[in-house]
Amino acid sequence: MSKVAVVLSGCGVYDGSEIYESVITLMKLDELNAEVQCFAPNIDQMHVINHLTGEETTETRNVLVEAARLARGNIKDIKEARVDDFDALIVPGGFGSAKNLSDFAVAGADVTVQTDFLTFAKAMHDANKPIGLICITPTLSAKICGTGAECTIGNDADTITAIEATGAKHKECAVDEFCIDRTHKLVTTPAYMLAGRISEAAAGINKLVVEVLAMAE
Amino acid sequence: MSKVAVVLSGCGVYDGSEIYESVITLMKLDELNAEVQCFAPNIDQMHVINHLTGEETTETRNVLVEAARLARGNIKDIKEARVDDFDALIVPGGFGSAKNLSDFAVAGADVTVQTDFLTFAKAMHDANKPIGLICITPTLSAKICGTGAECTIGNDADTITAIEATGAKHKECAVDEFCIDRTHKLVTTPAYMLAGRISEAAAGINKLVVEVLAMAE
Repeated sequence: MSKVAVVLSGCGVYDGSEIYESVITLMKLDELNAEVQCFAPNIDQMHVINHLTGEETTETRNVLVEAARLARGNIKDIKEARVDDFDALIVPGGFGSAKNLSDFAVAGADVTVQTDFLTFAKAMHDANKPIGLICITPTLSAKICGTGAECTIGNDADTITAIEATGAKHKECAVDEFCIDRTHKLVTTPAYMLAGRISEAAAGINKLVVEVLAMAE
Repeated sequence: MSKVAVVLSGCGVYDGSEIYESVITLMKLDELNAEVQCFAPNIDQMHVINHLTGEETTETRNVLVEAARLARGNIKDIKEARVDDFDALIVPGGFGSAKNLSDFAVAGADVTVQTDFLTFAKAMHDANKPIGLICITPTLSAKICGTGAECTIGNDADTITAIEATGAKHKECAVDEFCIDRTHKLVTTPAYMLAGRISEAAAGINKLVVEVLAMAE
């Protein structure tokens, strides 16, 4: 039974983890009998967005506390994550990846990754364990897996330019497929960078989860 | 193509809609090509619970605004729901059903259902359209479908006593099954009243969605 760390970044597409992508990931891992532990950084969100209006609010919310909604409370501070306890790492998307796990949403190619998350993710990569990044999260591929890591966010031109400027290689990919870099043990899929409906996101994510678990064995 | 109204009650098991149940419902509806519109009441939540600690906070959050997280912003005030526009109604569970769509969490058998939600749900029932209630939501069966409506929340003795006191009939049910009352066109399943893992909740909910759509045709 593979042990998989899933890192969340809040709860809601515009300021946290994309909920559908996260649940599809957790459901497929459960279906395949993986043992899962969710983690999130114990920091304030960059933004709190009213998901009804799309507008920024004046509220402050904590990433770990909000991500706990997605994990039914079963979540830990990413600082507690130990590489030896896990065979693989998967990170769903949503703006939380670009606002809380990193500052890609504002810094683009000059992205800085949140320290606690980067420490764990790099350590997983250095220990030769497979990593699955979903949606916008592959923008962090070079920071986690090193220069030359091959990934996909689908086909958005501006994001591709930024990704290549960070030192990663981008490969275009359909919503129901995934990109695999066997050298860097990195699996990526566009999900809601391209998906128009849940079943499209599920098609790519389900394949990513299968592939990550296969590499973990 | 069936048109289905899905009513949400926030975003998170302890003060809103149970996220996994909601996503499983929406995903199955999408898979079966149903046309879906999410709704929620435009009211404050009864509680805001810190899902990491389980403790009540002093925050105020709006049910419709938080439910919008679960719907990627594609949600409307339940006051705008018109019976003629829909073939069926499904309501996932979570404490939001017992705190925001009703006050079952505090009133038990003396439950009062939120006015805007009750108006729509009763009108759907009166128009002979099928209704699917998940998890704790079947506690509202008698209020929506009338005395004698048969439903399940699994096997929790106290909840069963309260349900029967409201005038509904309870039938014990396994997590991966559902209860169907063809007279009242009501389909119910225990989901996280019993589920220990996502795939268990999915088994029952997927069957409920198939059955509700079949009755809607």
